[in-house]
Amino acid sequence: MLIPKKVPYLYIISKIRYDLLYVLVVGAIVHFLTRSFYTYLPEMPLSIPMFMGTAISILLSFKMAQSYDRWWEARKVWGAIVNDSRSFTIQLQTFIDQSFSPLIRKMAFRQIAWCYVLGRSLRGLPPLEEMEKYLEEEEIIKISKHTNKALAIQQLNARDLKELKDQGEIDSFTHVHINSTISRLIDHMGMAERINNTFFPVTYKMFLHMSIYLFVIILSISLRHVSFIFEIPLLVAISSVFFLLEKAASHLQDPFENKPNDTPVTAIARTIEVNIKQLLEKQKVPSPLKPDGFYIL
Amino acid sequence: MLIPKKVPYLYIISKIRYDLLYVLVVGAIVHFLTRSFYTYLPEMPLSIPMFMGTAISILLSFKMAQSYDRWWEARKVWGAIVNDSRSFTIQLQTFIDQSFSPLIRKMAFRQIAWCYVLGRSLRGLPPLEEMEKYLEEEEIIKISKHTNKALAIQQLNARDLKELKDQGEIDSFTHVHINSTISRLIDHMGMAERINNTFFPVTYKMFLHMSIYLFVIILSISLRHVSFIFEIPLLVAISSVFFLLEKAASHLQDPFENKPNDTPVTAIARTIEVNIKQLLEKQKVPSPLKPDGFYIL
Amino acid sequence: MLIPKKVPYLYIISKIRYDLLYVLVVGAIVHFLTRSFYTYLPEMPLSIPMFMGTAISILLSFKMAQSYDRWWEARKVWGAIVNDSRSFTIQLQTFIDQSFSPLIRKMAFRQIAWCYVLGRSLRGLPPLEEMEKYLEEEEIIKISKHTNKALAIQQLNARDLKELKDQGEIDSFTHVHINSTISRLIDHMGMAERINNTFFPVTYKMFLHMSIYLFVIILSISLRHVSFIFEIPLLVAISSVFFLLEKAASHLQDPFENKPNDTPVTAIARTIEVNIKQLLEKQKVPSPLKPDGFYIL
Amino acid sequence: MLIPKKVPYLYIISKIRYDLLYVLVVGAIVHFLTRSFYTYLPEMPLSIPMFMGTAISILLSFKMAQSYDRWWEARKVWGAIVNDSRSFTIQLQTFIDQSFSPLIRKMAFRQIAWCYVLGRSLRGLPPLEEMEKYLEEEEIIKISKHTNKALAIQQLNARDLKELKDQGEIDSFTHVHINSTISRLIDHMGMAERINNTFFPVTYKMFLHMSIYLFVIILSISLRHVSFIFEIPLLVAISSVFFLLEKAASHLQDPFENKPNDTPVTAIARTIEVNIKQLLEKQKVPSPLKPDGFYIL
Amino acid sequence: MLIPKKVPYLYIISKIRYDLLYVLVVGAIVHFLTRSFYTYLPEMPLSIPMFMGTAISILLSFKMAQSYDRWWEARKVWGAIVNDSRSFTIQLQTFIDQSFSPLIRKMAFRQIAWCYVLGRSLRGLPPLEEMEKYLEEEEIIKISKHTNKALAIQQLNARDLKELKDQGEIDSFTHVHINSTISRLIDHMGMAERINNTFFPVTYKMFLHMSIYLFVIILSISLRHVSFIFEIPLLVAISSVFFLLEKAASHLQDPFENKPNDTPVTAIARTIEVNIKQLLEKQKVPSPLKPDGFYIL
Repeated sequence: MLIPKKVPYLYIISKIRYDLLYVLVVGAIVHFLTRSFYTYLPEMPLSIPMFMGTAISILLSFKMAQSYDRWWEARKVWGAIVNDSRSFTIQLQTFIDQSFSPLIRKMAFRQIAWCYVLGRSLRGLPPLEEMEKYLEEEEIIKISKHTNKALAIQQLNARDLKELKDQGEIDSFTHVHINSTISRLIDHMGMAERINNTFFPVTYKMFLHMSIYLFVIILSISLRHVSFIFEIPLLVAISSVFFLLEKAASHLQDPFENKPNDTPVTAIARTIEVNIKQLLEKQKVPSPLKPDGFYIL
Repeated sequence: MLIPKKVPYLYIISKIRYDLLYVLVVGAIVHFLTRSFYTYLPEMPLSIPMFMGTAISILLSFKMAQSYDRWWEARKVWGAIVNDSRSFTIQLQTFIDQSFSPLIRKMAFRQIAWCYVLGRSLRGLPPLEEMEKYLEEEEIIKISKHTNKALAIQQLNARDLKELKDQGEIDSFTHVHINSTISRLIDHMGMAERINNTFFPVTYKMFLHMSIYLFVIILSISLRHVSFIFEIPLLVAISSVFFLLEKAASHLQDPFENKPNDTPVTAIARTIEVNIKQLLEKQKVPSPLKPDGFYIL
Repeated sequence: MLIPKKVPYLYIISKIRYDLLYVLVVGAIVHFLTRSFYTYLPEMPLSIPMFMGTAISILLSFKMAQSYDRWWEARKVWGAIVNDSRSFTIQLQTFIDQSFSPLIRKMAFRQIAWCYVLGRSLRGLPPLEEMEKYLEEEEIIKISKHTNKALAIQQLNARDLKELKDQGEIDSFTHVHINSTISRLIDHMGMAERINNTFFPVTYKMFLHMSIYLFVIILSISLRHVSFIFEIPLLVAISSVFFLLEKAASHLQDPFENKPNDTPVTAIARTIEVNIKQLLEKQKVPSPLKPDGFYIL
Repeated sequence: MLIPKKVPYLYIISKIRYDLLYVLVVGAIVHFLTRSFYTYLPEMPLSIPMFMGTAISILLSFKMAQSYDRWWEARKVWGAIVNDSRSFTIQLQTFIDQSFSPLIRKMAFRQIAWCYVLGRSLRGLPPLEEMEKYLEEEEIIKISKHTNKALAIQQLNARDLKELKDQGEIDSFTHVHINSTISRLIDHMGMAERINNTFFPVTYKMFLHMSIYLFVIILSISLRHVSFIFEIPLLVAISSVFFLLEKAASHLQDPFENKPNDTPVTAIARTIEVNIKQLLEKQKVPSPLKPDGFYIL
Repeated sequence: MLIPKKVPYLYIISKIRYDLLYVLVVGAIVHFLTRSFYTYLPEMPLSIPMFMGTAISILLSFKMAQSYDRWWEARKVWGAIVNDSRSFTIQLQTFIDQSFSPLIRKMAFRQIAWCYVLGRSLRGLPPLEEMEKYLEEEEIIKISKHTNKALAIQQLNARDLKELKDQGEIDSFTHVHINSTISRLIDHMGMAERINNTFFPVTYKMFLHMSIYLFVIILSISLRHVSFIFEIPLLVAISSVFFLLEKAASHLQDPFENKPNDTPVTAIARTIEVNIKQLLEKQKVPSPLKPDGFYIL
């Protein structure tokens, strides 16, 4: 997540450097062609690129809305993970006898591990790194056999619950209740994976890009009477707004890319770790994750 | 699902070849008529087609939003199928005694079959093909008597649960809990069928098409002073953006057509198969589905 | 529901014949007035109607979005009715002993009846017609005393469940579970009634209409320099797009009017009938409803 | 709720009479100033007010969408109240022994009272008026001590349920089930109160108003070359569309104002009364509420 | 929350004083440059800033929609807190024996405290101030060890419930039911924190700002032929609408900033306090929070 008032302008401009280069080149070529060779180039009324620009704004606004929704849904999913992790811990403490507190601790730590593992899987990082802090070695071996490590962790918790049930420590009703929380966590995991695995409709993206490029060409033809010194900045200024917004939308679309504008899953997992450990009355809790320059992961 | 950066331009252009042909023909006819015969054709101010273009963008943006919602809902439904298939398997393992593991395996395999069968039904393919891998012959015979094969599979699972209940292996409470998961799966199935069976409002589509065709005619009249060499590319460029976007929207609307831009239900079903088999601790799991060129089904 | 590629153009044009007539009359009157009498009519710059047209598109797009939402919600409600009817049948079979299969059949048939009765009530048709196929005579008499027939049918099912409970055939837990499904069905019923009974804000509709009429007048004044032969088709073409879209939106708003563009509640009820009968292993099931020309009800 | 085809035009125009007066005054002043004094007033190109008008349409469309959502949410909440009132009655009949039918009747009547009381509270009317029909005197005294009368009614029902439980007439499970319905009713009540108590963002409303007023001034400067006889009607026509739509949106925002465009809570409560009484097999039910001229409350 | 009809204009203008200053300075500089030095400045057709203004309106409208959604979601979350606080109290009274009324009172008071503490935490105020009214000293000490005070309060309630269960005062089923309400309250808390901790996409905000600044520059170049006395007010009027709307949107985005346009969490917590105390039949209840001038917190 980018942090307001700290984002360097260079970071932003670097995002669209190739697009700006394209604008410059198109502007220069059109200008050169217009001036030197084709005096019989058609008169392009300014209203044509202006209409195109309006149309692009409308389409861009649609794209931004959808991208924002993906981004916000991703954030909501992780918010729900926070909530259910807290509720899960309180449920363990409320429904299982205190004599089982080592087991409660073990299951709660698995839940912490699950958050980190899910975050790392979504970002394509090796998921089980540093997980020895929260999981036993034997568990890590079991988990690592699974394609979906996070799912395997929930299976372990479900198994321990079953054992408690089989031993008569929790009744059928409580068993179902805590199991529902596990099902909900599996839902959140699947939702995050869905956002991560589903590409925004490709054709749509291509057409929008083509439209913006076409807009630049037509606008530069329209502006050829304007002197070169003014035309190029104007061309760059107007078109860079489109490119920047398109870029901003594209980044929101994919919130688990291990890039500065990601959903801050590591920071959220850390918050969960602090909450769960304090619920368990551990004295030593890690400090919340610090931003890394102008962003926090 | 189309895969970014791999989609060939030819694929895209082939989608709108008839529309482009229409634009070319209209452009040529209007040009010919204007030049040769009707010098008394009315002066068409450019602002009329420009306004129409803006209006079409607005309407198109509405259509894209609704189409996107259908597509995203279809994807969400299949995401929920993933989640509930995983939860269902874990529930079977958690609530049924291990001595019944052959039954658990059988029910979990039925769930795998259900995903494939539902996907194939939605796409209008013969649903039970290759299902011998997951279902017993006798089951396949029973299922094939039903119009809705996927529903029949869930009925089989519900029956086995009932038998467990009747034998006193699960209590009433657990029975209800697992049955709720089956009800949820039936919900997802019905939601996918709803999207598949409901046409996007026809009249709306027709009017949008008519508007775009009208726009091309009026624009070509407006541009008649522009020389033919420039007019036709301009006409094609501007109108093809509309046609392409309309096409992109239309394709998103119908996500179960067995076409490259489908929701990748086979790939999702394969993921579910891998997950379920690993939860069952099977050693041999199939590899995830590979993209077929520039798309994945 | 209208069926794509089959809708005759005449059907569509008949929808807006009065509006088109209005456009023709206004166009002719303005033309006549302009030409014959008022040479001192103000010069109306084209940008005024063009701006109005853009504004109308924006407002129309809002209306279409809301209408579409109503229509889609109506379809979703009926989709949920499909799902819960199926789940209800499976629940009856799963939770009630097979020795009660006549009762199960009776309750499942009531559910079929409920779907037809609800559909007919929403459309303002006599609800209990032909219901002897699914209900006993004595039940029909009871039901017909109620203002809300569909609600009365659910009460009957709830009563039979209560009797099963009182006889000790189902336990309290199962009772609650099946009762929840009945509550959900009552919810769906209420949602469909809500859409049916709530008018789209009237004032809003009136203002939009007034705007379109005003637009036609102003546009026709603007176009008076254009020769009559071209002005009228242009006027008709542009304004008919607005009228058609407004009409399309209005029709989507009211999905239970017993008109071609209705939500196909009879066809859906038929699907439910087929599904439920096959779940009950009846050999004879009706065939799915066929489209009636270019639409299906 | 306004009833289509019956709304008198006078009612609508009376809503914006002050705004229309403002337009007339501004138009006249600008006209007078322009003609008599300032020949050196700047030339105002028409494109400036046209752009402003487009911008206002876009912002207005946003406001209409949000207002519509509030209105529709209010209607949905009352739809859900209908559903849960029906389900609540059926649950009482299904889960409580018939020997308690006086109590069932009493609780169901309280539910009827709750609907009327909630409706009247939302509209700022004395809530307990005429409630002797449904509540006992002693209950009314208890309720009237509470700030939130509707909440107090639900507390009474919850208490009677508790007593049934304490007497062993319903089991713990049933108790929870019916209590959940009460919780849902409390949710609906809170949602309606939320809509009623939350002002639409004030600043936003002010800026929109200011923009429309500014638009009128600038438009009237632009149109000063047009003769007075045509300028004023044009000014009024264009700006009144904005004022009317803004008004329509404002009214939708506040659906519990005891005004003609309210959500028809009294009519809905009456429907609930009829439904509940028929479920209780009362012979005498009131007739549905009749519209009061062009609207129904 | 700002209160309509009371908001002073000065408050609003003070919000955009720096932006207005910028507009004045840019207007003056451009005017000065144009007049004095550059007679060879390019002719800037008015259609360029007009198009930009339309584009900005579209993008602004997107931003307003998202900001409004955040604001409305925050209000919904607090509405749900009201509902669940009421339901929680009724549940305590309904499911726990009256002999435990001191405990019920204690838990209900904790719920009141939770609302205040959550509100103060969200606003970054010291959360436990004045909480001695509702919590015991010993509890406050326990809670203050936690980073998340509100979560700690819920843990205390969950623990007391567990004790009741362990003593056999409530059964397993009731225990789960009330625990679900606690889980829901934890969900609401997490949702409010999510809105509070997630910045609206920074890049998007920056680009929108840049676009408005660019628009002012280009518009002022376009208007240089207009005399200075008219140009500056026009420039200020048009651009201030954008700045004001952008500001209005920005404020809606962050509803827990301890500023006049906050979600009125203190007032809501007070309402909850009144409701809960009256449900507990306390005679002395505080009066509802009064607005503080033109706003209520």
